[in-house]
Amino acid sequence: MSGILYGIGLGPGDPELMTLKAHRLISTARVIAYPAPDSGESFARSIAAGALPGGVREIPIIVPMRVDRFPAREIYDKAAHEIAAVLESGEDVVTLCEGDPFFYGSFMYLFERLSDRFRIEVVPGVTSLTACAALLRRPLTSRNDVMTVIPGPLPDDEIRARIDAAQAVVIMKVGRHLGRLKALLADMGLLERAGYVERASLPEQKVRRLADLDAETAPYFSMILIYKGEEAWTLPLSYSS
Amino acid sequence: MSGILYGIGLGPGDPELMTLKAHRLISTARVIAYPAPDSGESFARSIAAGALPGGVREIPIIVPMRVDRFPAREIYDKAAHEIAAVLESGEDVVTLCEGDPFFYGSFMYLFERLSDRFRIEVVPGVTSLTACAALLRRPLTSRNDVMTVIPGPLPDDEIRARIDAAQAVVIMKVGRHLGRLKALLADMGLLERAGYVERASLPEQKVRRLADLDAETAPYFSMILIYKGEEAWTLPLSYSS
Repeated sequence: MSGILYGIGLGPGDPELMTLKAHRLISTARVIAYPAPDSGESFARSIAAGALPGGVREIPIIVPMRVDRFPAREIYDKAAHEIAAVLESGEDVVTLCEGDPFFYGSFMYLFERLSDRFRIEVVPGVTSLTACAALLRRPLTSRNDVMTVIPGPLPDDEIRARIDAAQAVVIMKVGRHLGRLKALLADMGLLERAGYVERASLPEQKVRRLADLDAETAPYFSMILIYKGEEAWTLPLSYSS
Repeated sequence: MSGILYGIGLGPGDPELMTLKAHRLISTARVIAYPAPDSGESFARSIAAGALPGGVREIPIIVPMRVDRFPAREIYDKAAHEIAAVLESGEDVVTLCEGDPFFYGSFMYLFERLSDRFRIEVVPGVTSLTACAALLRRPLTSRNDVMTVIPGPLPDDEIRARIDAAQAVVIMKVGRHLGRLKALLADMGLLERAGYVERASLPEQKVRRLADLDAETAPYFSMILIYKGEEAWTLPLSYSS
């Protein structure tokens, strides 16, 4: 019998925000796989590091960092091939995923290659959406609010239309689009209703009212939340981190 | 010094989907608060039950079940008053919240009453969004998808416009709107792209392609996910629960 491929959501970064189930599966894993940059540490592996058992076999999936992080087809073909061999031997493979595997996650590249042949189980994780909302200390959605998640790389007119049609808005993948997004939100009169978070839940996290942020670019793991709903409180004037 | 009010996300229902942080704070709590129906068990308390320490003081917030679950102002005024007295005595209060406290959560009714006077910390939880996506065994969002969350009680024309403008769509609070929503999605040619989940991650969970569901009403905790994006795989033909 073949092994099971697990996609394990690890949450936004703080190891304590992984679920009990993720912790159990990781701490009993015999084979793990995870995305890793071509130089430096794997973020997913670093979240799970404290839970990894000794002697675990590791399959790093080395994806060169590029602006939009589109995966090279060959890299995932090769990783899927290596993982399939483990699964065929009857061993499970636990894939470590930042955030949630099915929410803008690279796990889909393994999923699309292996789901026809193997049993796959996904363990959901805390997403950066609600981790950032907690840090900004304002409820994200309530009652009959519509919430929309928009990738920052989309063009201005598309972002503007999506913001107009929602009460709560999350802009992901802010990165090098920060300056443009700030200008757009200022033009829409929403700067005072927007919060900014980078590296949520990590020691180096940064939480600000967008109006107070003078940077023009941001790291890849950064996010803007916009509070437009009926219950739109003003954002706290000071954030401590 | 006053105590801290914690809002703890417990995830969708399976106690193993709570975070390590939620588990630590609950298992060391001296005072807990939680929403409860006027008859029967509190769902939030039932998720946390296995982690509760002996002798913990409990403050149930009894909210009569009504269709839209709008809270009675007096009930939350009274609960906030009781919780404030505990916080003023220097004791922390751990509030148990289904899902995530700031994502369509009733915790906001305590937050809006107490955040000016007390320190509040929110621990994010796994939302039903990604828990349902895991059960439907299809990635929810990828690359530059726009995702929109729509409450089922909204009128048809509004829901239709929001669906048209997104690649991934989640309809929350399906409940008694199921029949109407099915008709709308059929009319939009999206029935085959929609999955249905009720009571995600609980033993009595139900996972179906929406096209295979013959019910016309659903429990309050039910959800429809619609996969429209570039990466829209067909849904698996059979679900096991």
